[in-house]
Amino acid sequence: VDADLGQLAGMVRRLGTFCVTQIEEAVAALDTGDTALAEKVIAGEPGIDALRDEIEAKAVGVVARRQPVAGDLREIIGALRIANDLERIGDLAENVAKGVIEPDAERRLGGVMTRIEHMAELALAQLRQVLRAYELRDAALAHEVWRNDEDIDTLENGLFRELLTYMMENPRNVGFCSFLLLCSKNLERIGDHATNIAESVYYIVEGQLMSGERPKASLIA
Amino acid sequence: VDADLGQLAGMVRRLGTFCVTQIEEAVAALDTGDTALAEKVIAGEPGIDALRDEIEAKAVGVVARRQPVAGDLREIIGALRIANDLERIGDLAENVAKGVIEPDAERRLGGVMTRIEHMAELALAQLRQVLRAYELRDAALAHEVWRNDEDIDTLENGLFRELLTYMMENPRNVGFCSFLLLCSKNLERIGDHATNIAESVYYIVEGQLMSGERPKASLIA
Repeated sequence: VDADLGQLAGMVRRLGTFCVTQIEEAVAALDTGDTALAEKVIAGEPGIDALRDEIEAKAVGVVARRQPVAGDLREIIGALRIANDLERIGDLAENVAKGVIEPDAERRLGGVMTRIEHMAELALAQLRQVLRAYELRDAALAHEVWRNDEDIDTLENGLFRELLTYMMENPRNVGFCSFLLLCSKNLERIGDHATNIAESVYYIVEGQLMSGERPKASLIA
Repeated sequence: VDADLGQLAGMVRRLGTFCVTQIEEAVAALDTGDTALAEKVIAGEPGIDALRDEIEAKAVGVVARRQPVAGDLREIIGALRIANDLERIGDLAENVAKGVIEPDAERRLGGVMTRIEHMAELALAQLRQVLRAYELRDAALAHEVWRNDEDIDTLENGLFRELLTYMMENPRNVGFCSFLLLCSKNLERIGDHATNIAESVYYIVEGQLMSGERPKASLIA
């Protein structure tokens, strides 16, 4: 069983690394308007789905052949949950990349882009840290990721109001700002999935669900 | 094992019914500006999370005690995946309800609201049909749901362009239209989760993943 579980965890980590790269490249493409890089991110998405399916097939195979119990079973259920959240993160990175292709994009709102990048950095930091918590089976680190999600929500709320202001000031800003609105929503959701993964890591290590209500600052639909 | 699997499927159906109600009420609240109804939807969301956690605990318990194989194991894995998508649908319904509370809402864009409702009806029809496919273990019906998602995407693309136009025409429309933009995104994602559930139903019944690329018309981040 140990060898199987090791392989499974390795596949999950590989998927995590893939997702980190997808987000990094999607945000870089958005920042520079590099549509070729955006196309690369979009082209990479089916690979993420495929890896998630492989992880699921592997997990089902291990359960069927090895009949694992207790901690080993938690490890497998946790891997399935994490793979699911990572696949969703891959979708969100693809969504960000799709925004880059929009031909009407206007790039004169430098301050907003800086804040989008800041949100992206926070979301990436959360994802990297929770992947590290998974690798080290570190429940305390997972709990820290879970608590820090509020910072991303706060940034999103500020950005939302700022984007509305730009759109009201000048109709020419509407197209680009609407895309940034959806982008910031996608980044906020990446943060949410990182906290889901934190819960899964905690569950794997501690054998129980994280207690308490997660701090939530997002007021936006 | 059969009794356990029956209970598990019953819990998943209960979660599905709960989600359908949450969406119906969230959209009704949005339509009429009924903030009390919106608060009810928001207050219902933790119940969805709790039911999902129960389903997961039940599934883990059945695997640990009964050591199921082949079809029974698929049934359990499928229930876990469906519960996960339903929980996400519950989040999206809550997001729609959160938009209702926004005090700056302007309700003079009747045509847009009609189209949002139309999108909501389509998403609900998809969800109801896929829950029926789950109940009947009907792979053909699941496949139909999977194919029909494109209609929602097409509606969303049209609505997106319309909302941008309203925002460009009059800065006073920006606040409300931005919320509707996120709402229509949330409804489109409910449709996506319905197709995920269709894939899980197909997997439970046929023992393999649905083949072919899903038709996708959404161009928006």
